[in-house]
Amino acid sequence: MNDTEGTSEKLALDPVALERAIAANDGAACESWLDQAQADEIIHEVAQLADADRSALLGLLEPEAAAHLLDLMPEAHAIHAIEDVNISVAAQIVEELPSDERADLIRSLDAETAEAILAELEPDIGEDVRRLAAYGDDTAGSIMLSEYLVFADSLTVRELLADIESNAEKYADYNIQYTYVVDNEGRLVGVLPLRNVILARRAAPVRDVMIADPIAMLDTASLDDVRSEFREHPFLGFPVVDAEHRLVGVIEASDVARADIEEADERYRQSQGIVGGEELRSMPLFLRSRRRLAWLSANIVLNILAASMIALHQDTLEAVIALAVFLPIISDMSGCSGNQAVAVTMRELTLGVTRPNDAARVLIKEISLGLINGSALGILIGGVAYLWKGNLFLSGVVGVSLALNTVIAVCIGGLVPLLLKKFKADPALASGPILTTITDMCGFFIVLTLASLVLTSLT
Amino acid sequence: MNDTEGTSEKLALDPVALERAIAANDGAACESWLDQAQADEIIHEVAQLADADRSALLGLLEPEAAAHLLDLMPEAHAIHAIEDVNISVAAQIVEELPSDERADLIRSLDAETAEAILAELEPDIGEDVRRLAAYGDDTAGSIMLSEYLVFADSLTVRELLADIESNAEKYADYNIQYTYVVDNEGRLVGVLPLRNVILARRAAPVRDVMIADPIAMLDTASLDDVRSEFREHPFLGFPVVDAEHRLVGVIEASDVARADIEEADERYRQSQGIVGGEELRSMPLFLRSRRRLAWLSANIVLNILAASMIALHQDTLEAVIALAVFLPIISDMSGCSGNQAVAVTMRELTLGVTRPNDAARVLIKEISLGLINGSALGILIGGVAYLWKGNLFLSGVVGVSLALNTVIAVCIGGLVPLLLKKFKADPALASGPILTTITDMCGFFIVLTLASLVLTSLT
Repeated sequence: MNDTEGTSEKLALDPVALERAIAANDGAACESWLDQAQADEIIHEVAQLADADRSALLGLLEPEAAAHLLDLMPEAHAIHAIEDVNISVAAQIVEELPSDERADLIRSLDAETAEAILAELEPDIGEDVRRLAAYGDDTAGSIMLSEYLVFADSLTVRELLADIESNAEKYADYNIQYTYVVDNEGRLVGVLPLRNVILARRAAPVRDVMIADPIAMLDTASLDDVRSEFREHPFLGFPVVDAEHRLVGVIEASDVARADIEEADERYRQSQGIVGGEELRSMPLFLRSRRRLAWLSANIVLNILAASMIALHQDTLEAVIALAVFLPIISDMSGCSGNQAVAVTMRELTLGVTRPNDAARVLIKEISLGLINGSALGILIGGVAYLWKGNLFLSGVVGVSLALNTVIAVCIGGLVPLLLKKFKADPALASGPILTTITDMCGFFIVLTLASLVLTSLT
Repeated sequence: MNDTEGTSEKLALDPVALERAIAANDGAACESWLDQAQADEIIHEVAQLADADRSALLGLLEPEAAAHLLDLMPEAHAIHAIEDVNISVAAQIVEELPSDERADLIRSLDAETAEAILAELEPDIGEDVRRLAAYGDDTAGSIMLSEYLVFADSLTVRELLADIESNAEKYADYNIQYTYVVDNEGRLVGVLPLRNVILARRAAPVRDVMIADPIAMLDTASLDDVRSEFREHPFLGFPVVDAEHRLVGVIEASDVARADIEEADERYRQSQGIVGGEELRSMPLFLRSRRRLAWLSANIVLNILAASMIALHQDTLEAVIALAVFLPIISDMSGCSGNQAVAVTMRELTLGVTRPNDAARVLIKEISLGLINGSALGILIGGVAYLWKGNLFLSGVVGVSLALNTVIAVCIGGLVPLLLKKFKADPALASGPILTTITDMCGFFIVLTLASLVLTSLT
């Protein structure tokens, strides 16, 4: 009996079974497959489906199950899948999402689909989504939630508790640790921890139990300001108000954490040359190719620029062909040293311990480190050159070049993100290419110029 | 009057004023400086202090203020600063930290200091820290909290509320949205949302109001399992139990988010060659130099290995010196293409849409992309070569080499993280160096071999 169960479970979890159920338009079979699978399994298998199958699957499920599935998909898949589902089904699914995810999704859809879905939503939900989706990407409004408890300051504790009781189902997914109190114009006048509610006399007016004039954030505040506010006050959440001090949302610490994770992921992606958004290998080949190529094309131009420095010194190179072996080493090692400095500056900017105006301090710290590491690497490569060719001049040219260029690389690597940040450019994206171009040019120039100075001793 | 206030405030926030207050051992002045400064200001200025001044500052503050300051410092600073404070003061500060940060900090201190501080802590706190600090880095136990409400299943709702009332101060920082119910052996038997408490009859036994047999995590579960569990059930938090099903802690979604941010930061750091932990420029020069150099030394050996491929073909290079201009370009561009593939695989691994066993699929996807991008880049560089030298053979050799090597680079870049993950190595750390070494060797080999085949047409 147990064996049979094991087998049937294993069969049901066969990824092909999911594809078959989708092909057969068998919603019940899809739902049962998803019910039996672990979340990790679902994420992996649904990602392997063809785009059309993912959309079809969403359409076959109950809206609530579809919303849960959407939540498990990488964002890029979710957006694409919902765009291909029948509009009225899409609207039903969107209604099941939490308010912040709803707005995120609508913001990411193409304008036409977004408008069509908005028109199909229940009027009050549609209005809420429009309101949230209108906030700019980098604002408090873009990460706040609409799911919070709000009460009029004219109520008593008894009336408040009665409201919670009669709306128990609606509030089931709300964080109710804190409730908010507004006046009759909707302006925020207090925060009421649920703890206080429990311990208060039932007849007491809410106004007497609440914490008056709570700290609130403006809906148009930047994410950086939101982060500062959370650092300043270690609260679990903050109320968000508009310019008229009307309560418009709530931001929890976990919303900020999510924004931080996205930023860290993007920093990594961009530093590795993945630009234009997340790439998944299930995306169309030409989209993936085009995006990667855009960055590579800019890079190859910079590379040719750097290599032109070699072209200018061909005669030196021709006389001492051994130098050609060391050019790529000097280029690569300087790039590595410089990238370490870039990473440290990027981290210090994120942590807030370094600011764009701290260039002088960064420079001093990097020069001293560059001198040590440059000397060590220079001696190493110089030693290898001597062992290979037995020429002290060659060894000296190569060693000194790498040493000098290491100092240059760490200084540039340390400073470039600060400068980019100062001029409001994206340091994660541009620091690498700028760094390697400059250090390559300097490296090639130094080694070939030094070599030309002692050319007779090299040959 | 207002003007005067403005000036005095500005004066007080002068960073030099903080240093002066520390030098004068003036705790009150330090505290007033910190009170007036924004959190961002504090983070930045305190990071600029000398190590000794940071420790001195901690010692001058009230333990609660010192704990808050410790919380604002980058972890590396916090650890160092607390190690240099008088042990009994350090213990007082540690007592003011939340339970998870306490354990994190103690785990990070050198063993001797940790032991000394533990001995000075209040016995029950000391025991709690020892218990938490004993968990391995990658376990549920290492990120769980001890601050939660727990009640015996024999209580009534009235008794439970009375406990909350009489411990209101102690519970002030607790998340009380959920409380936990245990039997007389401390075994978890239920979860009790505070909402249910509010709405329950005061005389009802807790046992009747709670949700029985809640989902719990094992304290020894891995962080990956914790993440899966949160994906599986979108709860705000989970109770954590030991092997005897005794309740030992609580994990909230925000604890997992914090672990995710740390992981993303480490991925970025390691991909850029910052190994051995966070580097801040305020750390000792030789420590920073040594850590960076460790990674660079391994890299230079790999670089020399790759460049030896050029040394083997010096005769070809001597005949066609123009090739020397293209070697660094081919090396760098292949590295860029390969790193893009590394980044995509790393992201797909994190998202869970690709697993170590999906190598075949990754390979197919990367080969097709590599053919397109390789052709585009090959034509580009071949065109540049033709414009420069007017030799179609040179142009062909360079173009075909970059095209071929791009295909190789994206395949290796896509696969290396999967292989490293499969063999339990750290993909973020090793993928880059392995990739560039192999692609450099292949690139140099291809271009010089092709050139030697058509040597007569090149010269």
